[in-house]
Amino acid sequence: MHARFFAPDAHASGDVVSLPDDEAEHLTRVLRLTRGDAIVVFNGRGLAFEATVHRARKGGAEVLIGQPSTAAPEARVAITLVQAVLKGDKMDDVVRDAVMIGVAAIQPIVTARSEIAASPLARGRRRERWERIAVSSAKQCGRAVVPIVFPPEPFEAVAAFADDRQLPGPMMMLVEPRATTAAVPLGELDGQPPREASLLIGPEGGWTPREIEAASEQCRLVTLGGRTIRGDAMALVAVAALFAKWGEY
Amino acid sequence: MHARFFAPDAHASGDVVSLPDDEAEHLTRVLRLTRGDAIVVFNGRGLAFEATVHRARKGGAEVLIGQPSTAAPEARVAITLVQAVLKGDKMDDVVRDAVMIGVAAIQPIVTARSEIAASPLARGRRRERWERIAVSSAKQCGRAVVPIVFPPEPFEAVAAFADDRQLPGPMMMLVEPRATTAAVPLGELDGQPPREASLLIGPEGGWTPREIEAASEQCRLVTLGGRTIRGDAMALVAVAALFAKWGEY
Repeated sequence: MHARFFAPDAHASGDVVSLPDDEAEHLTRVLRLTRGDAIVVFNGRGLAFEATVHRARKGGAEVLIGQPSTAAPEARVAITLVQAVLKGDKMDDVVRDAVMIGVAAIQPIVTARSEIAASPLARGRRRERWERIAVSSAKQCGRAVVPIVFPPEPFEAVAAFADDRQLPGPMMMLVEPRATTAAVPLGELDGQPPREASLLIGPEGGWTPREIEAASEQCRLVTLGGRTIRGDAMALVAVAALFAKWGEY
Repeated sequence: MHARFFAPDAHASGDVVSLPDDEAEHLTRVLRLTRGDAIVVFNGRGLAFEATVHRARKGGAEVLIGQPSTAAPEARVAITLVQAVLKGDKMDDVVRDAVMIGVAAIQPIVTARSEIAASPLARGRRRERWERIAVSSAKQCGRAVVPIVFPPEPFEAVAAFADDRQLPGPMMMLVEPRATTAAVPLGELDGQPPREASLLIGPEGGWTPREIEAASEQCRLVTLGGRTIRGDAMALVAVAALFAKWGEY
């Protein structure tokens, strides 16, 4: 199987397009491919092509786009993961895993118990880092789509985004069983798969009662069994469970 | 919430029992608890109790068993995860995650494409390491059961174990969609939850055609969607999907 590269400018067979710097470096310096080598490229928005290296040199790479190629299918339900930013590098793992399992978009949020504020996130260029991780994960899992990673926002923005439909409905908020009596087991949600959905997952310390209260106007509150799932594994487990419920597997 | 400790000798209220060395060290040196402090203990076979520290000193700890306590519920379907040993530390993560999500037992196997042989596994005391990880994960996820980690065995032992019912049926082997035409999507399995089941998951490089052929006599071959899931995330995704299908969530 040929190596896969992210080529956002790949639209049509016969074109010669440049790769982004990270991808060019991967092609030239890591894999040491040269003119004529066969690869596969995907444009991040659903198209994949066979391709050949057209020019590879220090500082850049160009590829000749060939025939359309088949990529891993996108999930039937386009889930936007609304994930509270986790401590340290754990959010990196969540982004990687969420792209791998097949979410459509990721909205990082900063909640009352997130142990990080929004401004260090911006200074730290964390979003750019998560975007690179999303590309890297798409390369590995065979998708031709690179999910959007939205800029981190405070929890309070969720309500407005829901009104604007930047966060598609139905919306679900995962809560600990003991956090509220208003939640239902995930399995008891309506089984008919929606076209899209949003899934809110809290930080290690969970949601505050106020956040649950605020979200309950727009979100179904759902639980995921009685065993404690680590914060950085919750997205993978919850999306797998939803996909199973909605006939993805 | 009080700290939880693994106390395999905890059977009945009123008893004073010693903790295993690792647990005693956690109690005395990490958490620095002393006589009279309230804790929770679980015996690894399903019982949990409130307890108090009876004696804590360098080299050991004893606890007084109090009233029975509620632990996280066990899964309705007792899944034995038959996992090909992965490279490096990745198997550690799989053991941790499998215990967290709620498998009943773990049978490590060495397959044709596992990049490790059985004898270095034995010399490396890997099983003892995985057992410690299982205890640690049970402490964190709230279970009172510590899943058994069986000694690593070659793939060829699976057939005999299935006959002996050490590996309970129904048995399922996860395969890549392109590896065989004989597989069915996981969602198309009979939806009626069994009482127990075994799930075979291969190494990073996948099963060999010979292994799939051999297993197909005793296992349903199942697929899990079209996107490539990393080897070390497969158990979590597959068990979550099966649990969702079987009404666990």
